[in-house]
Amino acid sequence: MAERKLILDLDTGIDDALAIAYALGSADEADLIGITGTYGNVTVERGVRNSLAVLHLFGRDDVPVHPGVDHPLTYDEAANGPWIPSAGSVAVHAPNGLGGAVIPDSPRAPEAPGSAVDFIIDAARTYGENLTIVPTGAMTTMATVMAKAPDVIDSGAHITLMGGALTVPGNVSPCTEANISQDPEAADRLFRCGARTTMIGLDVTHQTALTREGTAQWRALKTPAGDFLADMTDYYIDYYLAHQPEVRGCGLHDPLAVAAALDPGLVETIGVNLKVDLDGPFRGRTIGDRARLTDPDKTTRVAVGVDVPRFLARFMERTTALAAGR
Amino acid sequence: MAERKLILDLDTGIDDALAIAYALGSADEADLIGITGTYGNVTVERGVRNSLAVLHLFGRDDVPVHPGVDHPLTYDEAANGPWIPSAGSVAVHAPNGLGGAVIPDSPRAPEAPGSAVDFIIDAARTYGENLTIVPTGAMTTMATVMAKAPDVIDSGAHITLMGGALTVPGNVSPCTEANISQDPEAADRLFRCGARTTMIGLDVTHQTALTREGTAQWRALKTPAGDFLADMTDYYIDYYLAHQPEVRGCGLHDPLAVAAALDPGLVETIGVNLKVDLDGPFRGRTIGDRARLTDPDKTTRVAVGVDVPRFLARFMERTTALAAGR
Repeated sequence: MAERKLILDLDTGIDDALAIAYALGSADEADLIGITGTYGNVTVERGVRNSLAVLHLFGRDDVPVHPGVDHPLTYDEAANGPWIPSAGSVAVHAPNGLGGAVIPDSPRAPEAPGSAVDFIIDAARTYGENLTIVPTGAMTTMATVMAKAPDVIDSGAHITLMGGALTVPGNVSPCTEANISQDPEAADRLFRCGARTTMIGLDVTHQTALTREGTAQWRALKTPAGDFLADMTDYYIDYYLAHQPEVRGCGLHDPLAVAAALDPGLVETIGVNLKVDLDGPFRGRTIGDRARLTDPDKTTRVAVGVDVPRFLARFMERTTALAAGR
Repeated sequence: MAERKLILDLDTGIDDALAIAYALGSADEADLIGITGTYGNVTVERGVRNSLAVLHLFGRDDVPVHPGVDHPLTYDEAANGPWIPSAGSVAVHAPNGLGGAVIPDSPRAPEAPGSAVDFIIDAARTYGENLTIVPTGAMTTMATVMAKAPDVIDSGAHITLMGGALTVPGNVSPCTEANISQDPEAADRLFRCGARTTMIGLDVTHQTALTREGTAQWRALKTPAGDFLADMTDYYIDYYLAHQPEVRGCGLHDPLAVAAALDPGLVETIGVNLKVDLDGPFRGRTIGDRARLTDPDKTTRVAVGVDVPRFLARFMERTTALAAGR
């Protein structure tokens, strides 16, 4: 059992499912103690269902899945009804969130509704600096954790999140990345609360292109898990080639966040005290907080470079071994 | 005579005048072979007048001053009349561009109107990699150079410009820095033409605060040059304290660009292939060019960190020695 404990806070989506596979394939480096469910690519309900199903496919029914906060901090559910994903998210991940690839439901039920917040708090208090949390969707659950239990901020637990775009344009607007756009207020609170974060944004994830040559390696395994990874990811690659051809494949957003969480040496980072713009056309932009510009203590490391060949080789090696059942 | 040749492309303004002082005080490191005049803080006419007057004050009537292009590439002078600075620029630098500090006109006349472009081209062809150009205003003259003489792009001449904001908000809009805002098209062409550039933007210049303790050192010299530097810069500091108090003094924008041009070790840089947004609320933003995101050859180094104590000490040492007549 690895000393490092890992929690993935996912809106399971395609690349979230790949992040689960990467984490399960990295058992020597980290012990996945739980998945918490946020929203973004899909609803919390759909994401939790997908997380359970992916864990079941890989034979890991021992990992608990805790539903988290299911809508943005400022969202008025009474007036607007349950939160649902944007048309853009549905197009990227398909209505089932997994590119239309079909896998059976897990026989397991999720943990109690909303239990993600206390699960993360307890884990931070138990494991401290041995805990890494990787949020890859809306940051609402994470912001709620910090508000409910401010001691988590200084617990030593590290947060390596997928989200944001500092040196490159966004993917839902010229300045806004999708995960941050889901709940800019929550992300802003997370960046400014003092917690130690590493931002794996489009700056680096758009450099990590997986092509159909990669998915063909999974398909060649002739296993249910290999077929699932290939079917799901080919859908994702096709979406990218149609809409963001400059990436030359699909960006491995969430898996890169997990990989960098387990091996920070994969990315080059700079220290920046970040905020999130909340107003007008800049809403959702991750940018330096001028109020903390000259503060020598930088609470966020922003990844601006990535060792693409090393990451891609490791990603294929671990996911392929997992899908082969090795 | 230093082997390194230096051209400053200035819209002489307060911090441009400080950049001249820094360059003259760095004669051991670089030979200032000329100043070219652009617009931004002031008109080309006013900036050229100020450059000549500052050179005369420091006894350097040997340095030629060449007027450059006096309006943005897309500006319709026939319809709108001569270009004039914005109300914001006039407020920052005062109507005379020098914070209201008065120094006599130079007895010299400037070089021929528009001669900046050919002066820079000739210098690049003559000195190649021994030439460094430091543009600190609108990039129109620089873009015109590259369009007229594309061989300058590969001449080896290096461009270290003051402008832009990559990891922090802008100073004329939430995403736009003043120099780039003057002529976004020109800056975009400069960043994308293939020329080797280093961007000294607000990311670092807003960390370099000069306070009234600094200007008091100049005033204590009891020389005309010391009084001028102190009067001019106190105006600038007061403007900052009133409008951007978080900087805690005035930002030494243009002097830092000169200092980093002469000693790149003063700043920490990352490689980014930049573009400038040209449309809507993002017009004038410096941001990564997605079309060149995965190109391993990065044509721009963007400064994201600066050794503030070392820079400030060197700035005060060189400008004070110059103003003392030592």
